[in-house]
Amino acid sequence: MDLTERQLASEAVYQGNFLQVRRDRIALPDNSTATREYIVHPGAAVVVPLLYDDAGVLRVVLERQFRYPLGRVLIEFPAGKLDAGEDSLVCVQRELREETGYTATEWAYAGCMHPTIAYSTEHIDIWFARGLQAGPARLDAGEFLEVFTATPQELLQWCANGQVSDGKTLSCTLWLQNVLQGNWTLDWKAA
Amino acid sequence: MDLTERQLASEAVYQGNFLQVRRDRIALPDNSTATREYIVHPGAAVVVPLLYDDAGVLRVVLERQFRYPLGRVLIEFPAGKLDAGEDSLVCVQRELREETGYTATEWAYAGCMHPTIAYSTEHIDIWFARGLQAGPARLDAGEFLEVFTATPQELLQWCANGQVSDGKTLSCTLWLQNVLQGNWTLDWKAA
Repeated sequence: MDLTERQLASEAVYQGNFLQVRRDRIALPDNSTATREYIVHPGAAVVVPLLYDDAGVLRVVLERQFRYPLGRVLIEFPAGKLDAGEDSLVCVQRELREETGYTATEWAYAGCMHPTIAYSTEHIDIWFARGLQAGPARLDAGEFLEVFTATPQELLQWCANGQVSDGKTLSCTLWLQNVLQGNWTLDWKAA
Repeated sequence: MDLTERQLASEAVYQGNFLQVRRDRIALPDNSTATREYIVHPGAAVVVPLLYDDAGVLRVVLERQFRYPLGRVLIEFPAGKLDAGEDSLVCVQRELREETGYTATEWAYAGCMHPTIAYSTEHIDIWFARGLQAGPARLDAGEFLEVFTATPQELLQWCANGQVSDGKTLSCTLWLQNVLQGNWTLDWKAA
């Protein structure tokens, strides 16, 4: 079956400080017409930072951040929005450094996820980082967050009990679990 | 650290057929002010339908659907948006029946995920269904999708190689893998 929807017309209907909304007239597979409204997003990148503590135990670096649309603090992996035309590795290296102070000697691209396929063009590239070195965080003005670490087992427990509910962080945890179990492999490259 | 952001003013800035956008003026933890723009969403529900084929092999029911904001067909678990005030189990039972034709004798609530914490109020309740019985699908007018089944191992492979990138489906797969491995338990109830 051909499921393709074809654009007939496209209009910018809201241009905010942060959100751009478009409304398109489209042709459905049976040639009837319909409307699609969606957010135009530049894309984002997220990182799973792997850290060995003094006892040699693997931990991941996480953040607590207040997320206004949900009215509460959520636990998430460090992430950020791409600047126009920016490479996702450059973006995620900057976000990790600015938000947590960490730099990393090795990086691996895991995959791409789409958080909101019904109404946003957003994609999020998932990266892993290792060989972490601590340094000073440099939060943007107006940016407030807490950095902490947890073991993969703690993170999985929080996914199971609802303490972690952020979609990108759940997707990263699927990757983390399968990498640690040896099911999925990463191609590490020097920074 | 208190990370709370407080609402100072709130305004509906776009009211479309499908998307509602609000723009709020807020106070940051240091009492400086900022703007937050976000989609107001009624919430949604998704289901991981478990099916044993004639050979007794476990399979899951999936869909292929054209997702216009991304301009291509994506693989996803059956899901739908809540009607105003609707219970998420009622919603997901209806969506499973209408989109795939299946009804189920037992249901289990797994957890809640937030697909887009930066700019949407949306939450998605994750359900599992078993004891599936096939019946006629009844797609809404203008709804086009293909229903198919896969083994959990195939699904995990597609998550690893990028053929599955939908955030809610990746989150469901984290649940599926941990339930099948016996790490996480579900509380099944008769429909």
